[in-house]
Amino acid sequence: MVHFKPTYSGLWIVVIELLKKISQGDRRALSKAISLVEAGDPLGLDILRACYPEDWQSFVIGVTGAPGVGKSTLISQLTERYLDDDISVGIIGVDPTSPFSGGAMLGDRIRMEKHYLDPRVFIRSMATRDLNVSLPKRVRGITRLLSLAGKDIIVVESVGVGQADLDIRNVADLVIVVLAPDMGDSIQFLKAGLMEIADIFVINKSDRPGIDNMIHNLNEVADSGNNILLGRSVVLKTQSLNGEGIVNLKQSIEACRELLESSGALNQKREDQRSIEFFELVFQELKLRLKDDMYNDSIFKSTLQKVKKGDIDPYSAVLSFLERGFS
Amino acid sequence: MVHFKPTYSGLWIVVIELLKKISQGDRRALSKAISLVEAGDPLGLDILRACYPEDWQSFVIGVTGAPGVGKSTLISQLTERYLDDDISVGIIGVDPTSPFSGGAMLGDRIRMEKHYLDPRVFIRSMATRDLNVSLPKRVRGITRLLSLAGKDIIVVESVGVGQADLDIRNVADLVIVVLAPDMGDSIQFLKAGLMEIADIFVINKSDRPGIDNMIHNLNEVADSGNNILLGRSVVLKTQSLNGEGIVNLKQSIEACRELLESSGALNQKREDQRSIEFFELVFQELKLRLKDDMYNDSIFKSTLQKVKKGDIDPYSAVLSFLERGFS
Repeated sequence: MVHFKPTYSGLWIVVIELLKKISQGDRRALSKAISLVEAGDPLGLDILRACYPEDWQSFVIGVTGAPGVGKSTLISQLTERYLDDDISVGIIGVDPTSPFSGGAMLGDRIRMEKHYLDPRVFIRSMATRDLNVSLPKRVRGITRLLSLAGKDIIVVESVGVGQADLDIRNVADLVIVVLAPDMGDSIQFLKAGLMEIADIFVINKSDRPGIDNMIHNLNEVADSGNNILLGRSVVLKTQSLNGEGIVNLKQSIEACRELLESSGALNQKREDQRSIEFFELVFQELKLRLKDDMYNDSIFKSTLQKVKKGDIDPYSAVLSFLERGFS
Repeated sequence: MVHFKPTYSGLWIVVIELLKKISQGDRRALSKAISLVEAGDPLGLDILRACYPEDWQSFVIGVTGAPGVGKSTLISQLTERYLDDDISVGIIGVDPTSPFSGGAMLGDRIRMEKHYLDPRVFIRSMATRDLNVSLPKRVRGITRLLSLAGKDIIVVESVGVGQADLDIRNVADLVIVVLAPDMGDSIQFLKAGLMEIADIFVINKSDRPGIDNMIHNLNEVADSGNNILLGRSVVLKTQSLNGEGIVNLKQSIEACRELLESSGALNQKREDQRSIEFFELVFQELKLRLKDDMYNDSIFKSTLQKVKKGDIDPYSAVLSFLERGFS
């Protein structure tokens, strides 16, 4: 699984040693590698490069929805069902209000604690800012490292589509949108674009009033859902606090996964994701290089001054500046 | 205030007529102009260009904080106090859970209704996606149009820093961060970076338990706040449901505004914002042009294929592609 090529950090022995340890299940090595990737360290770049050619055995499940719908408890329950089958799980928390990311109430965090102590589970929370490496880049890197560490199932928990620049579709193989019946917010989040991205809708806290009405509405929405194979999204009910519906959810996930794999749709999805990743990297690198060039350009500097003072509008300034070009 | 220059839509008569109507207080013209800007219409571009050179009389207040802390009710109360002094107010809602953006509970929306009907108030909600024009660009454009329409105070309500790509600092003259005492989430949002951007901290729902503890903690945090003139953020208590503390908040805003204006700090801030806007526009335009070029480049196409298949890693691919350059 681990392949070697010339490195940028010059520390190839360190990289290979680290990856070897990760694939052998060393949790400290995994944590260290993730931290290097997050920090944008040259070693982190080499670590990711060394993960190629990709040889994925893992399946990445995105779980998204408004704060308070019970995403974390649901993931916790789902994790337990996977552990029952001795399937290992990696969890990446991107929602700042989630116990996985260190947020939420103390009670939630205590419920998570048993997973933190289980060697088959690895939980990593993501700061949504203040790091040199963008969130999608970090999440992608960490899924690769978790895959290398042998996690069969990787769950990425996030708040929504535009949230903190992470579009869950670009990192997950399957997207679950979680809702709760009595939350007005849920409908708003649906409106905000979650509707189109769901492979599976889960209505959690299904013992609450309004559930029948919500299922009715969702079933209408589901027809415009994302599930490429079924043609519509799956709609399920759960009560994550007592575990009701979780086995059913797990079976649905497995059914979707089988369909995705056997039809070739999973490969297609991952090709698209890699292609998006490549474009992002190209533009990011170009931006850095152009920024250096621009600052050394005298016409650019004088244009910028005029824009700053409000003397010319930025729209006209950009057009005239680019018309001329810069060297 | 309205200046003319050659236009890109070729419809300069329409643009000038529209801007004239807006500055005369025509609400339908204002709505129409905003829609054109949001849709990325060439007319919208010309409308924004025609707003230059800038001649700002308005003051833009950013109000941010976690969902549920009472931002909308606070803004509603503050708006009433401004209307008492016959000062007109424009409100831009970016938070999808806010009644200004059509979200939240019915009760909230009913409370807003009187403002919707007052001719001195203009409320515009922003979809956070599904439009061709980026959110910061739209918000900036709308603040300019609201200013042209004579709104003295413009309030932008958003959820947080990274939320849907809007960094409130880049559009507001003053940033208010709203918190509530009993919300664990509030602390998380603080951690997520709201702390450093606040000119004024408002602890809303100040009748709730935990208020003293929160004020104590906030006063420590306030020293690392954003308020350039005072050296620290201001910390205030409010109860937006009954209006307690709102007059005090309005006075603080006015004191900050006076300091910002008299010291020249406001001008500096706006110059920085224009400069950020210019950079964004330059890169956006370059990206569009490069994308066209790249798609016509055979080496790029074959590199992309290899990345798609997972044969080479995107990091190495980007470096080797850019080393070579493309024509």
